[in-house]
Amino acid sequence: MARTQGSHSEITGPRVREAAMRLFARHGFAAVSMRQIATEVGVQAGALYNYTPDKQSLLFDLMREHMDALLDAWQQEDPGGTDARARLEAFTRFHIRFNTRRADAVFVSYMELRNLTGENFAAVTELRRIYETRLEEILRAGQDAGVFTLAEPRITAMAVIALLTGVNTWYRDAGRLKLDEVETLYWDMVRRLVGG
Amino acid sequence: MARTQGSHSEITGPRVREAAMRLFARHGFAAVSMRQIATEVGVQAGALYNYTPDKQSLLFDLMREHMDALLDAWQQEDPGGTDARARLEAFTRFHIRFNTRRADAVFVSYMELRNLTGENFAAVTELRRIYETRLEEILRAGQDAGVFTLAEPRITAMAVIALLTGVNTWYRDAGRLKLDEVETLYWDMVRRLVGG
Repeated sequence: MARTQGSHSEITGPRVREAAMRLFARHGFAAVSMRQIATEVGVQAGALYNYTPDKQSLLFDLMREHMDALLDAWQQEDPGGTDARARLEAFTRFHIRFNTRRADAVFVSYMELRNLTGENFAAVTELRRIYETRLEEILRAGQDAGVFTLAEPRITAMAVIALLTGVNTWYRDAGRLKLDEVETLYWDMVRRLVGG
Repeated sequence: MARTQGSHSEITGPRVREAAMRLFARHGFAAVSMRQIATEVGVQAGALYNYTPDKQSLLFDLMREHMDALLDAWQQEDPGGTDARARLEAFTRFHIRFNTRRADAVFVSYMELRNLTGENFAAVTELRRIYETRLEEILRAGQDAGVFTLAEPRITAMAVIALLTGVNTWYRDAGRLKLDEVETLYWDMVRRLVGG
């Protein structure tokens, strides 16, 4: 379908990113063309390049924005203060809620690390490292305060994140358990895992 | 390079499967062609069809064989008996050892569920369910014997598997910790998680 120049203004960032995320999650980055993304958005392929220089930049933007959103949202939800147990419970509930609502982004962020260029890989890996460090700091604070007993805070942080992200592989909104019940179950596991 | 008919006998199953696994892990199932797999094996594309009818069958075979190998290996290693704590420790160490040695297979098995046909998806999902049930039975046995304290044995089994599989995202052979030290760290976490 022919489009006028004017329709280029319809190519908003969110529409392109949503379409790309959906297609990358369904087919994998390497199997999706800029033409497919343009078709999904409903514009001509050439018009897409007004928004993004190439597919690599689009993938990198998606992965970076996902991590930025995660870090920002946690900064909002972190109760702070000296009660490491309360902060760890808040982190547990936050991580499950944030990630179950963004299944495609979580899947793409894990799966497509392999397709980032060296520089982009380093940038995304650094954001992941920062997120792990947020949790590690809570674990160390709890350890110092004598409320947690654990070896290797860094590895424990990565283990807890893997445990919590695993909810995405089985949780369904229509399932037997409500999300807040799932959060409570996992908080019970995390609390015991750190000797809390 | 021209090949004689005789060279078809060189297309052994293991060579085709190794090449396909490596390429699927690197690029994703949808982006890899039978021609690429043939090139990687060093035969003409047509020769590949003597071994497998199509790419879907190849993917399904890889994923089914991975799960069959996992189930068989655990059956060998499971100490059995009535000591649920000893069985859970054996499971923890086994799962980490088995999966860190098969990073590509673990990655493909998680990532490419989306590309299985309905029937193949059901078959692989059933094998995963059986593996989860092996662990769930240990957790229930420990609960009945009063050595574990946990709610929701099924969800706990899935949580423990996610926790343990997470080792693949960070463990490197050349790293600071040896694999048996990692196993011990994770066993400590799992033991506490189940209230053992």
